[in-house]
Formats: sequence, C-alpha cells, structure tokens
Amino acid sequence: MSKWAVFLSPYQQAVEELKVKFKSLRDQYRRASKHTPIEFVTGRVKPITSVQEKARRKNIALDKLETEMQDIAGVRIVCQFVTDIDTIVNMLRERDDITVISERDYIKERKASGYRSYHMVIDYPVHTVEGTKHILVEIQVRTMAMNFWATIEHTLNYKYSGEIPQHIKRRLVRAAEAAYNLDEEMSKIQDEVREAQTIITKRQEENRGTYK
Amino acid sequence: MSKWAVFLSPYQQAVEELKVKFKSLRDQYRRASKHTPIEFVTGRVKPITSVQEKARRKNIALDKLETEMQDIAGVRIVCQFVTDIDTIVNMLRERDDITVISERDYIKERKASGYRSYHMVIDYPVHTVEGTKHILVEIQVRTMAMNFWATIEHTLNYKYSGEIPQHIKRRLVRAAEAAYNLDEEMSKIQDEVREAQTIITKRQEENRGTYK
Amino acid sequence: MSKWAVFLSPYQQAVEELKVKFKSLRDQYRRASKHTPIEFVTGRVKPITSVQEKARRKNIALDKLETEMQDIAGVRIVCQFVTDIDTIVNMLRERDDITVISERDYIKERKASGYRSYHMVIDYPVHTVEGTKHILVEIQVRTMAMNFWATIEHTLNYKYSGEIPQHIKRRLVRAAEAAYNLDEEMSKIQDEVREAQTIITKRQEENRGTYK
Amino acid sequence: MSKWAVFLSPYQQAVEELKVKFKSLRDQYRRASKHTPIEFVTGRVKPITSVQEKARRKNIALDKLETEMQDIAGVRIVCQFVTDIDTIVNMLRERDDITVISERDYIKERKASGYRSYHMVIDYPVHTVEGTKHILVEIQVRTMAMNFWATIEHTLNYKYSGEIPQHIKRRLVRAAEAAYNLDEEMSKIQDEVREAQTIITKRQEENRGTYK
Repeated sequence: MSKWAVFLSPYQQAVEELKVKFKSLRDQYRRASKHTPIEFVTGRVKPITSVQEKARRKNIALDKLETEMQDIAGVRIVCQFVTDIDTIVNMLRERDDITVISERDYIKERKASGYRSYHMVIDYPVHTVEGTKHILVEIQVRTMAMNFWATIEHTLNYKYSGEIPQHIKRRLVRAAEAAYNLDEEMSKIQDEVREAQTIITKRQEENRGTYK
Repeated sequence: MSKWAVFLSPYQQAVEELKVKFKSLRDQYRRASKHTPIEFVTGRVKPITSVQEKARRKNIALDKLETEMQDIAGVRIVCQFVTDIDTIVNMLRERDDITVISERDYIKERKASGYRSYHMVIDYPVHTVEGTKHILVEIQVRTMAMNFWATIEHTLNYKYSGEIPQHIKRRLVRAAEAAYNLDEEMSKIQDEVREAQTIITKRQEENRGTYK
Repeated sequence: MSKWAVFLSPYQQAVEELKVKFKSLRDQYRRASKHTPIEFVTGRVKPITSVQEKARRKNIALDKLETEMQDIAGVRIVCQFVTDIDTIVNMLRERDDITVISERDYIKERKASGYRSYHMVIDYPVHTVEGTKHILVEIQVRTMAMNFWATIEHTLNYKYSGEIPQHIKRRLVRAAEAAYNLDEEMSKIQDEVREAQTIITKRQEENRGTYK
Repeated sequence: MSKWAVFLSPYQQAVEELKVKFKSLRDQYRRASKHTPIEFVTGRVKPITSVQEKARRKNIALDKLETEMQDIAGVRIVCQFVTDIDTIVNMLRERDDITVISERDYIKERKASGYRSYHMVIDYPVHTVEGTKHILVEIQVRTMAMNFWATIEHTLNYKYSGEIPQHIKRRLVRAAEAAYNLDEEMSKIQDEVREAQTIITKRQEENRGTYK
C-alpha cells in the first residue's frame, strides 16, 4: 500500500460519510412529504495522478496539500430547481458537524465558459484509526441541467488540456444557454410541481414505487 | 406476507438482474475506452396500489396481469446523446437472454404533451424458487434532458390525475422545447465529446476519479 | 406516512451513518496492513410492532421511548477473535462523535442460556431536517462463533415467546459450548493468524481479491 | 486499461450477476416464509497476479486460461446447516441458466488439513459488448462454521506459501474439529430452528427488522 493510498484514505471516508448524510436528508424530506431540494448525491476522491499534476501546476508543496488543495474530496448535490440551491446552501451553513470555510457563487457570476454551480469548501472531521482528522471537502451544488452541461464541458476541457478551440467553445456557450433556458422554463412551473410533489411523495412513500 | 408481495417478487428480481446487466455493459464500454451509450440505469416495480388502480381503469382481470399489464417491472436507461438511444435499442434487440415483444418510438412521434422516450416491452426469464418464470419488463430509453422533463411531467400528471390544466400544459410544452433544444445543442458537439470521452475514460479508469 | 415512520427516521439515519463509519475503520486497518478487529458490520432499526410490544411489556410510556428504550437502533460489530472485542470497545470509548452511556459484558458474565456478547449503549447525534437530534444506539460486539449461536437462539426465543422448552435449552447450551470451544481453538492460533493477515492484507490490497 | 483488465471484465460481470440471482432466491424463501438455505452470498474475481502465479505453477498456457483455470470467478454460498448444502446443490443442478461442469464433495471427503466445503464448477453465459461469452465459475457451498475455519486456514496457507509448519497444522486440525462439533450440535436443534424460522420470517417480513 503506497503512502498516497494511506494519505487519501480519510478523504474517501469523508466522501462516504457525507454521501450517507445527504442521502438521509433527501429521504427525510420525502418521508415528511415535502419537496426535496436534493435530487441525487455523488462524490469522488481526486485520483493520485491528478493530485500530483495539480500540485505541480499550482506550485503546492506536497506537505501542504491538506490545507492548500481544497478539492481532493468532492461531493456533488444535484437538485431540480435553481431555488433549491439556496435551500441546500443555507442548510449546509447551519449544520454543526461541518464548518464552512469559503463559498463561490458561479450561478450569479457565471464563468465565461458558461459554467454555473455553487461551490463551498467545508472542514469535516473524520474519526480514523489514528484519531480525529480534519478534512477539506469541496461541495458543488447544481441543477440537473447545470450538471449535464458541466459533465460535457469537463470532458472537453480534459481532452484539450484546458485549451478548447474557439469554435467548440462557441458551441459550448450555446449549449450552456440551452441548459439555462431549460432551468428558466422549469422555474416557471416550479410552484405547481412543488405542490404536486408533496402529494405524490406522500402516496409513493406508502408504495415505494420510485425508479432508483 | 400478502399474495401481492409474492406475485411481485419475480418482477423485483427481473428489475435487479437487468440493472446489474446494463450497468456491467456501461462499465465494459468504459474499460474498453469507448464512449458509453449508457449514462445511468434505474428501475422500479409498480406499487401494489398502482397495479390495482390501473387494472380497474384498463379493465384487466387480475388473473391476466402477467400478460396484459406490461409495465409492472420497469427499467430506465438514460444516455447523453439522442443517437445513443439507437445504439442501446439495437443492442437490446440482439441479446439472447431477452426477447423483444414490442417497441414504441415516442422520439420520432413525440406525444402532444411533449413527452419523448423510446419504449420496449421485453420478455425476461427469471429463475425462482419454484422454477423458471417469464416476466414482461418495460424498458424506457431516453437522454438526460428527456428524463429531467419526464420526471416533472409525471409529477404534475399525478397531481392532476391526468387532467393537467391548460395553462400548465402550455408551460410544460415550452419546457419540453427547452429540453429538446438542449439535446440539439449537445448533438452538435457530440463528435468532439465522444472522441474526448474515449481519451478520458482511458485515463480515469486507471485513476478511478469519477463522481459516483 | 405514519407518525411512527417519522419517529423511526433518525434511528435509521444513525444506523446508516455508524455502519459507514465502522466499515471505513475496517478498510483503514486493511490499508495500513494491520489485522482488522472488525470482520463485518450489520445494523437494524427495531420494527414498529416490536417497539410497541416491548413498550407494553416493559411498561414504557410512548413519550419516553427516546430515553428509556435503548435498542431501537442497533449496530452489530462481528470479529474473528475474542481479544478483538476489547480492541473495538476501547476504540469506541475514545471516539468523540459518540458518547458511551452504559456497558454490559456478557462475555465475562455469560447468560444462563449460553449467550455471549459485549453490549454498549451510546448517544449519537444526527443532523436532521429539523436540526440536531440525540439518538440512543445499542452496539453489540461479538465473534463469528458467538454470532452464529446468537442467531439461532434468537430464532428459538422468538418461536417460544421466551419460553424455550427445557430439552431444547439443554441442546442450546451444548451448542453454546461448541461455539465457545471454536473461539478457544481459534485463540490458540491467533498470533500466527494475525501476523499472516498483515502480510496478506498488504498483497490483497494491491490485488482486490477478497470475497465480498 | 491493460489487456488483463479487459480479460477479467466478463468474469466480474458473471460474479455480479450470480450474486444478485442467489440473493434474490434467499429473499424469495423469506417472503414465502420458508427456512432459507442461503444465509449470505459473497464473490470475487481472482486478482491478476494470482492468475499469473497459478498459471506458472500449474503450467497453464495463457491462451488456455478460459478453459483450464476454473476458479478465476468465484462465488461462495454460506448456509446455517449442513443439510442446507444439499438443497443448494440440487437447486443449482436444476437451473437452466447455468450448466454444471464438475462437482467435488469435500464434506464427505474432508481434506487432510480439515477443510470442508462443496465445490461446483459451472458454465455461465454473460452478454458483453462483443456478444455472448461463456465463463467458468467456481461455486463453494459451506456452513458458517466451515467458512470461519476456511478463512483462517486460507490466511495461514498464504503466509507460509502452502507450507504451514507441523505444529500449526495440528492446531488447525483441532480448530476444524471444533468447527465440525459446532455444525453437529447445530444439526441437532435444526428441526426446531427451521420450524421457528418459518414463523419468524413471516413476522419479520412484515416488519423488516433483521440486521443487515
């Protein structure tokens, strides 16, 4: 077992625990027959080679990774409506098992590429074999449309090592607009949907008939 | 344990087995460093009360459910691009562990509501405690944008018991158009993305860094 | 959704979180190439009818369940060797995300039935939609042999509503002795095994070849 | 992605599918309120280095692995009682989605080391991206006591590269006898337990209160 695997182990633990915690919240909303702001939750630990490559690129000393590289552990919360994002962000700020370190709102201030998402960096304590350890975790909150687009953009960014050709960038911006329009249209029927979901969740909970 | 639970048990088994089989295909595409037409797979068994209600509504005798109600077991395959749908449909037609009974193309012939998806009904044999049993399963194939829209429409349809008011219907149609536009824009960068995904999947596979 | 389901929801959350936390510890031991005192972890929430029946039998008012019924949430940690139990108990006492409320050592003081296990009741805070909530969880620590026997005894106890006939009780005591002997024999080769496991785990970790 | 990973991919798929299928059977027994012969199911794919090492040792050409190495894919079915093993073996012989290639009864003919288990090699077809592929899978059927012992013996065998010292071998044989005695004692209360389990499973199924 390499030193890297031992180093990354508590990050993996943090991601697993947070995924369970956020999924529990989603289930509680459903049981309480409320609209759930959490549609699904995913997570990942940055691969060793990516950690090394980013450390080189950002000039981060390897013994400073724990404090200076903030996205080694990543958790993504995906929701239906843009307004769900605020609900989630407020909820995260109020929990006492995590401490919010910083926030970036790429929805109000969209990136030039078209990227939209709300980012938070939190401090999360995990209990390891050697005792308590504080881990930085990046939490990304986005709608399903933002997520669809971001997945595609990530793929292309990776392919071109960050240097996407102009004609593809333009296409991406157009796709980002289409994703934005989908979010806008969804917002308009959101109040109808929220009210409906409360009723449905109530019936479904008795029935357990949702796709999963 | 009610008779209903015993009746639904092989349907649950069919859904579980098919989910594992389709997820294996996705992983194989990734390992072979190819673009995977399968983004994610979900499934559900229709709740008892819904089966009963639909049997009443469609006038299906309870002893004919196995042959006449075709969506008691449902599996949904969600993909990135519209053209992935053809790939999946062809792949399903060629497997010899399932038999395709019927197909409906709601993408070429979109419903008035705006609904788009490709539907197949298959016959799938499961091995139960009492021997082999043939189960009908409805498979829905759609893009992420179609899926987002359909989730919302399902919620509203349920709320209004199929009688969605005109002004909400109109909003839904506009949202369906926004979803369609997103699919169109994505199609235009699809070749770029496919090629990129092959490269990425290759690197990621070594690294296991995808959100999941 | 019944009031009971809402009442039990944070108990389910506590069980899920603790299972993830204890499984993480097991994985960390393996990654650090040490003998892991945790072989597997299971959990359950007491079914509603059992909670009601026990409340009646023990004369517990329903509004005092949270403090007076201590096994609504249960987590079981199963290990290979009797000495692993001490390791686990000490580890639980030192964590600061849980508070140990009480302990019962049914290994030193085996029950007349033959039952052996180490029991702890802990206070565990969960973060729900309505804020932080303190939950009592019973943790049972046992070897695989103790667990095998206890499963069988539980089944019989349930059948005879706690009044197992004398001739079966005698058989159970003999089976408990056989389980005890297996633990004794295993203890004798334990140092050999521990040392070996360190080596194996190291190799397997690179290989991921364990049955699971 | 190495050639080895591509080679092992359908073996992984076979293991996943068979685990789901055997777990479904267990759930069906429970729902039908019968004693289930299947307590739990695990599986693994042999790690690449072990495949290579065994090929060298057994003198198997790498292009003959598919037919001559029969335990690349392994599935283990663990049960409560020795007589459950027969039930499982008969059930496997009758399924038409698998073909039994060979059987070895190490329970009637226990190994000198003390090892007991029932082994079957089956042919199982998986549907891959390139079409149907026939995979050999070794299925091991054992009681919980046999499984506990075998785990320990495997650890030691590995440590000493198959050359366990005489004094440890003697201890292992004594532990195997203790495991055998536990199985014997359990057999004696088995009819009581089976009958009881039918009742319990019935009640638990309504309640979902089992540890898992």
